[in-house]
Amino acid sequence: MLQLYFYPMACSLACRIALMEAAVEARYHLVDIFGKKVMENDGDFWRVAPKGAVPVLVLEDGQTLTENAAVLQYIADLRPDLELAPPAGHLHRYRLQEWLSFVGSEIHKGFLFPSFWYANEAAKASARARIGKTLSVAAAHLENRSYVIGQRFTIADAYLAWSLLLLERCGVDVGEWPSLAAYLARMQERPKVKAAIEIELQIRKTLPRR
Amino acid sequence: MLQLYFYPMACSLACRIALMEAAVEARYHLVDIFGKKVMENDGDFWRVAPKGAVPVLVLEDGQTLTENAAVLQYIADLRPDLELAPPAGHLHRYRLQEWLSFVGSEIHKGFLFPSFWYANEAAKASARARIGKTLSVAAAHLENRSYVIGQRFTIADAYLAWSLLLLERCGVDVGEWPSLAAYLARMQERPKVKAAIEIELQIRKTLPRR
Repeated sequence: MLQLYFYPMACSLACRIALMEAAVEARYHLVDIFGKKVMENDGDFWRVAPKGAVPVLVLEDGQTLTENAAVLQYIADLRPDLELAPPAGHLHRYRLQEWLSFVGSEIHKGFLFPSFWYANEAAKASARARIGKTLSVAAAHLENRSYVIGQRFTIADAYLAWSLLLLERCGVDVGEWPSLAAYLARMQERPKVKAAIEIELQIRKTLPRR
Repeated sequence: MLQLYFYPMACSLACRIALMEAAVEARYHLVDIFGKKVMENDGDFWRVAPKGAVPVLVLEDGQTLTENAAVLQYIADLRPDLELAPPAGHLHRYRLQEWLSFVGSEIHKGFLFPSFWYANEAAKASARARIGKTLSVAAAHLENRSYVIGQRFTIADAYLAWSLLLLERCGVDVGEWPSLAAYLARMQERPKVKAAIEIELQIRKTLPRR
């Protein structure tokens, strides 16, 4: 069985959504991402993941795969019939990779990461100065679209919806971009997305406040 | 013919390397990335690329593709016989995506981008505080490997080699990680990599100093 190391509401939530949408069973390991401990056995998370970050997907053969762009594509490809990722070789597959990279580098690493992890206010301000332009690109793309790619839900939606959800917690009012706010509301109404968020919010409540 | 919008020695260099390794002809458009102008006709770069960033690959049908992770995979897949990317469905393909994401988010967006673009010294310092840990992950991976993935040069090498090359310009001594320094030296000896760098350094000399 696949195993996913996660921290509730961190970007590993996108992987949980993908696993649930793909109806792939997995064992979930809660990580204290601040103390770098695997909660169930107080194990050293650095030994699981030299990067010290979630998500970490442990494959059936024990190898680990990290980075959302890779983990999400791996999960989607387990169930090609569900088309959670366009097939390899199709232009839409490159579009998917384009959006996974955009969310990962511009929204996540460019803004959410400094906002959550940098103590320095000036560093946060530099990141904040750019997020409006970044979100305008996504908002324009979603002006007349229901999903990021094509006519159906893909793992790019799992990742983008997660990132928009987290923006609110960093003081960014997604409502300033009506197409993004409407998109996020639609995504949160999807049964599997809603269930995944609910599970992680419940787990989050059991942890010390940060 | 494919077209690539680039700025010399920016991350679009990885795309030029990929195109040259793949022996794919392309027309190259130099962009003033600071003034957001296409140099050959003083055109508005925002109209080419709403993100205002390179690389931008214009496909045969006129559509544009952005983000290195997507553009590099697109180029590699034009010449499957050269194996610049492992085939779809193979675990190595996910490893490739993992490394493209790691270079793109951790080295490029997490460190190089703030170093080049943020005026704020505190913001640069926050990024700098993390780069050692990031590079140690790559250094450990390359301790006993000639290439990032498998036994041959892939687009992950094009992207990682570019990022290491740029680190020196941001005051990071790659020599502190002997396996990375040796890897970068090997990559720079590859004829196509060497030629691509030489072309961009020559173009760079024609531009105002920054």
